[in-house]
Amino acid sequence: MGEKVEPRTLPGFMELMPNEQILMNQMREKIQKSYEKFGFLPLDTPIIEMAEVLLAKAGGETEKQIYRFQKGENDLALRFDLTVPLAKYIAQYGNEISFPFRRYQIGKVYRGEKPQKGRFREFYQCDIDIIGDGELNIINDAEIPSVIYATIKELGFDKFTICINNRKILNGLYEFLNLKEQSVEIMRIIDKIEKIGKDNVIKELKNLNIQEEAIKTILDFISIEGTTDEKLKSLQTLQIENKLWNEGVTELTGVVKNIRLFGVPDENFKVDFTIARGLDYYTGTVYETFLNEYRSLGSVCSGGRYDNLAEFYTDRKLPGVGVSIGLTRLFYKLNEMNLMKVDRKSISDVLVISMLPDISESIKVATELRKAGINTEVYLNDKKVKAKFKYANKLNIPYVAIIGEEELQNQKVTIKDMESGEQEMLTLEEAIQKIRKVASPDVQIASQLHT
Amino acid sequence: MGEKVEPRTLPGFMELMPNEQILMNQMREKIQKSYEKFGFLPLDTPIIEMAEVLLAKAGGETEKQIYRFQKGENDLALRFDLTVPLAKYIAQYGNEISFPFRRYQIGKVYRGEKPQKGRFREFYQCDIDIIGDGELNIINDAEIPSVIYATIKELGFDKFTICINNRKILNGLYEFLNLKEQSVEIMRIIDKIEKIGKDNVIKELKNLNIQEEAIKTILDFISIEGTTDEKLKSLQTLQIENKLWNEGVTELTGVVKNIRLFGVPDENFKVDFTIARGLDYYTGTVYETFLNEYRSLGSVCSGGRYDNLAEFYTDRKLPGVGVSIGLTRLFYKLNEMNLMKVDRKSISDVLVISMLPDISESIKVATELRKAGINTEVYLNDKKVKAKFKYANKLNIPYVAIIGEEELQNQKVTIKDMESGEQEMLTLEEAIQKIRKVASPDVQIASQLHT
Repeated sequence: MGEKVEPRTLPGFMELMPNEQILMNQMREKIQKSYEKFGFLPLDTPIIEMAEVLLAKAGGETEKQIYRFQKGENDLALRFDLTVPLAKYIAQYGNEISFPFRRYQIGKVYRGEKPQKGRFREFYQCDIDIIGDGELNIINDAEIPSVIYATIKELGFDKFTICINNRKILNGLYEFLNLKEQSVEIMRIIDKIEKIGKDNVIKELKNLNIQEEAIKTILDFISIEGTTDEKLKSLQTLQIENKLWNEGVTELTGVVKNIRLFGVPDENFKVDFTIARGLDYYTGTVYETFLNEYRSLGSVCSGGRYDNLAEFYTDRKLPGVGVSIGLTRLFYKLNEMNLMKVDRKSISDVLVISMLPDISESIKVATELRKAGINTEVYLNDKKVKAKFKYANKLNIPYVAIIGEEELQNQKVTIKDMESGEQEMLTLEEAIQKIRKVASPDVQIASQLHT
Repeated sequence: MGEKVEPRTLPGFMELMPNEQILMNQMREKIQKSYEKFGFLPLDTPIIEMAEVLLAKAGGETEKQIYRFQKGENDLALRFDLTVPLAKYIAQYGNEISFPFRRYQIGKVYRGEKPQKGRFREFYQCDIDIIGDGELNIINDAEIPSVIYATIKELGFDKFTICINNRKILNGLYEFLNLKEQSVEIMRIIDKIEKIGKDNVIKELKNLNIQEEAIKTILDFISIEGTTDEKLKSLQTLQIENKLWNEGVTELTGVVKNIRLFGVPDENFKVDFTIARGLDYYTGTVYETFLNEYRSLGSVCSGGRYDNLAEFYTDRKLPGVGVSIGLTRLFYKLNEMNLMKVDRKSISDVLVISMLPDISESIKVATELRKAGINTEVYLNDKKVKAKFKYANKLNIPYVAIIGEEELQNQKVTIKDMESGEQEMLTLEEAIQKIRKVASPDVQIASQLHT
């Protein structure tokens, strides 16, 4: 072979070492299983769509970031989220679908952002949405946080807060204050309060020519403190007379009541009037989720209620509510901060190493171990014994099964615990029991089914 | 909203209804678990790569089918298989990887083929490969069929045949007959023997100006019949004197011996001298797998041994052996022929339906069912009871849990078996036991862990 091409991966595209990939896959599986426990149906849409279809709604920043290209006659684009494909799917197959349509989708999406540390151009989103046909009961807005709660718990975290707000409250407030036109800019300023402080927020609001009384009302609103119930009560004291506001307060109060019914403890959710979630998409309840000890990660699970999912494709009214976990970024951050809380660090539970020139006994033992539900690799290549153990170590395989002359004659197998270094010669049945104790959940299952 | 965009999916891109997606996902998970049972490590490479990197080797048909496009300064392409990304990965991270490197990858690949029934432009491949650093023991070639065997069994099939050949035997034969240059064309003709018959094969070979004696040898070779051992023995009687041929015969004989050692029954594999698997890629053992009763599906799992995985990227010698399942096409065919053999037809094991205006008891019951490992959906929207049962039916949910006045007062729940139509009022614990009996493997696990 002549000239070599330099093997390299595009910047902004995550490519993991196998030991990291094992952790990433466990996160993905935990999220999937949690979504399925609530009866969300799987969906898998193409990564490539017609640009016209995918960009029916998009504009501005999104359109600039899109991967768009010609293939033959076709103007194509890669999906940049999982919501637009869902809208397309429901508009397309609406008559075959049963409503409410509860679906999850876990898949890669593409955004040609300026690549920087922790920002990816290809990343996994893990979405759930509940879509109604014409209408969707507000109680669905209370179920979503219970799915978030179960999922984040499943990922190994206890200290997290699902922050809830309602866009109608925000829109109603600004409508009441005759500041509807400026509301986007006001919310942008308020969003900075933690960084720049209250006084600077007041200054910037004054620069927008907002009346002092209105500023006072806005600050009173975002400064509401207390327990969830106290906060809801405080909304009354602001004396906002506005239909939208009232609707929002009623919805939020109902959602909070039902969240408790769905079993989410008070320490894991709160009402937060500063949460707005973007500008024109959400129309009611909105959610953001923070790990209490790692708020710098930003929201790990966000979403909300929207009135009309597929208006660019159909006249059919399709209200919905949903949330999304940005898995790639979350994994990247947790891994970087050494916060990954997963069960297993290897695929194989045991590596079988033969001390004999004939490898047949090792293969027989491996076949039996696999039958018992244990992930088993046989070291098949001619290497020194030391190299074989080093391989087990590098792959984090917890046990090595050694087959030598003595084991063969006694029909036993020596099991070495790679962490403690201890080893003992056991019958196959004893070995299976021993390995099962620290092995994967799957193996524990097989064990249960076996006994 | 004004003008609507017609929601539609590109031709050649599979998009399933949820009930089909449930089946597809089960197939994918079974394959993944089977690969992991043999200790293959997960890998997930980007779908987009630099065109220069991805096309280092490609040419001809492949290059024409590629999705290739510019984004900013970059010349990009979508992966068309999982082997080139593997080669890139190993060349790139070779010093951090432990060899032998055993990896699986399950992911979408892209080929802009002319779309036709059963042909897809976006499809899943499920690959395993074992890569050695400098060398790779031939015994790995025997382990691969044992992985194929376990995986196809896992997919629910018993009657299938893994066909095995060795490219060195083929290349040695044509070298011996001084037909090396014409070997590609000869194999193309031989490939048609089932369709056109032996006489027409002879005629076409004569048209290539091949000597009668050589034609006789070729026909004797491909006509070898008998058991696997008889076939291997018959190779001797052909009196081919060629180094490559001899190497191939030795390898194939060794592989057959070891396949048995790996526990693959004789009825599930055979030596087949007509298997060639393409032209320049494979260098030793080659595999194809057929479902005996559905040979028209073509090979469902194919692959082989190659001398040098990453020669376009590195001087490092990286021999390997692997196989691939074309999942999308296999699912499409099995589904079309009604041959899907999977355990579950729904995500939810039970749908909770409230007969009361207050839904709180239903939510409490659902939370308990989920704690017991049962996938549970609560019907949250205001519909007539009939519509709720219809929903359960359409989603193939096996049980409905009904909460009415009587159930509430007795602290019980009525469980309706949606297939038999039978229903009985049970305590929650009894209900859990009943649902577990037909529910998903996960639930059975939870049941085992519970008792």
